[in-house]
Amino acid sequence: MNHELSEKLATYARQVESGLRRAVPRTDGDLLSEAAWYHLESGGKRLRPALCLATCAALGGNPEEALDFAVAVELLHNMLLVHDDLEDRDRARRDRPTVWVRYGEANAINVGDYLLGLAYRSILRSPVSGDIRLALLDAFTFAYVQTVVGQSLDIGGRADPRFTLERYEDMVTRKTGYYLVLGMVGGAVVAKSPPIIMERLWQFGRFAGPAFQVRDDLLDLTVGKGRSGRIGCDIEEGKPSILYAHALQHAAPAERERLVAIMAAPRDQTGPEDVAWVIQLYRKTGAIEFAQKYADEKIARAQEIISGLPLRERETLSRLTDFLITRAT
Amino acid sequence: MNHELSEKLATYARQVESGLRRAVPRTDGDLLSEAAWYHLESGGKRLRPALCLATCAALGGNPEEALDFAVAVELLHNMLLVHDDLEDRDRARRDRPTVWVRYGEANAINVGDYLLGLAYRSILRSPVSGDIRLALLDAFTFAYVQTVVGQSLDIGGRADPRFTLERYEDMVTRKTGYYLVLGMVGGAVVAKSPPIIMERLWQFGRFAGPAFQVRDDLLDLTVGKGRSGRIGCDIEEGKPSILYAHALQHAAPAERERLVAIMAAPRDQTGPEDVAWVIQLYRKTGAIEFAQKYADEKIARAQEIISGLPLRERETLSRLTDFLITRAT
Repeated sequence: MNHELSEKLATYARQVESGLRRAVPRTDGDLLSEAAWYHLESGGKRLRPALCLATCAALGGNPEEALDFAVAVELLHNMLLVHDDLEDRDRARRDRPTVWVRYGEANAINVGDYLLGLAYRSILRSPVSGDIRLALLDAFTFAYVQTVVGQSLDIGGRADPRFTLERYEDMVTRKTGYYLVLGMVGGAVVAKSPPIIMERLWQFGRFAGPAFQVRDDLLDLTVGKGRSGRIGCDIEEGKPSILYAHALQHAAPAERERLVAIMAAPRDQTGPEDVAWVIQLYRKTGAIEFAQKYADEKIARAQEIISGLPLRERETLSRLTDFLITRAT
Repeated sequence: MNHELSEKLATYARQVESGLRRAVPRTDGDLLSEAAWYHLESGGKRLRPALCLATCAALGGNPEEALDFAVAVELLHNMLLVHDDLEDRDRARRDRPTVWVRYGEANAINVGDYLLGLAYRSILRSPVSGDIRLALLDAFTFAYVQTVVGQSLDIGGRADPRFTLERYEDMVTRKTGYYLVLGMVGGAVVAKSPPIIMERLWQFGRFAGPAFQVRDDLLDLTVGKGRSGRIGCDIEEGKPSILYAHALQHAAPAERERLVAIMAAPRDQTGPEDVAWVIQLYRKTGAIEFAQKYADEKIARAQEIISGLPLRERETLSRLTDFLITRAT
């Protein structure tokens, strides 16, 4: 069953690749197309857009009509990565130099702006009725604005000694919760599903998004984030992770002070011994265990949201959302 | 006549201010709204959005229906300024620190992304039929993508020894030609004008936009660009102006070499004597005279475009475009 779904999603992902080639010209501007494709070709599983098409088909729609939207979701995803890498000063992604390192900061900002414009252009070209196109644009714009608001909470939380779990939750819900399910929502819109489906998918995102982000926070402490296996990047960058939020609340005053100092220090002044000390603090204060439990609970809540649907949609969507839960990180 | 129009535009500009207050929340995110408003309140005449409303009314439409689009045009304008200032490393705008200087680079990128999302949200809220809303979104997205492509040509032309007048023209047409008239186009769309009106307005922009940019290039050599009267900023930044393109083609080889070297040097290594030498070169090679003539010719072509319209639209629109020509720089 899951193998069959995997194969189907791989087929959809190939359709998304063709769609991307139509949506992103090879010759725009000076280095603009080159830099955009440098990033787009760096990989990625095209999971979100493939799930858009799969959702549309599963709910009785024509996935061909959802392809332009699926492409837009992938373009948004990549636009956010290009801007985030510069905002975070991340020098590598999937073990290659990031766009700003390779093409300069000015081009990186502009490439992100470009990908977003192409995303809107793609939705506007969707072969669907005007009402559905407008509903797709509404959903896309809603998720995009939420993500940007979440990103500002992320930037503002860096090395903040008053960072809390509440602020963490608000941040990750906005930053990852909506655009995680945007593709599935769009697929449901194209399939002309009843509003309850879209509502439930957004709710699913509000629980699953934070869970994925927490797993990502944990990944940074174990296998690293695709930067040649280096671990503790979030600590070097001072990123407000769930571990940081929890440790701030549970460490002794002197430890808290040292933690904030390490998080606040510029990246090149954070040595391996600092990273090791913070990880040991996370372990000691129970932050790692807490984070694992937090993620599990959110996933369970997300699954409940879907299992509350009428039988037919429940079976259809839970296969897809379960797949998303297994594969998204 | 012109006084009456001025007053009307001032009234429209006040409506745009109210519209902006509805479109841009005061409390989003962490520093996000604050930084957005810091920029939005730094002034600006709201000329483009006021012309949007005036165009709509003049063509028989209801300007209230165009207000959300007018607001979107103003948000786009400001989004581009916030990103441009960072891309160009400009530290001051209207004699105040730019957003990236005041709030950091990460926030500046994110604030620009935010303003663009709010612009789309504003258009999507327009109290017009779905078809018109889609036509507005098409026009907006078209102008936005063109502007971003033009910006990449600008970035790529910095201190480029092979920069030409042809490349200059392509760059400025895209970078300023379309979004200059976007507001007026949107006003015409809301007024349900025949397609010829929108076509002519875009064409008008293709001539007037470059003319304004050339005037801006010239302004940098005389009164400066609102950075406490400092002149020659474009030279310090190595920006590919029309003067640079012309001088490259007309200077002697040794002069050309020195010109490129000065343009390529980091800003803080370009002294007043370098700036003075470049301005003297621009004068000697006839670049300044050429630029003035170029701008005058483009303006004349732009006016011809409008005067080719049927009588009724011609009178209506030429008052507005003449106003734009007089005031936009």
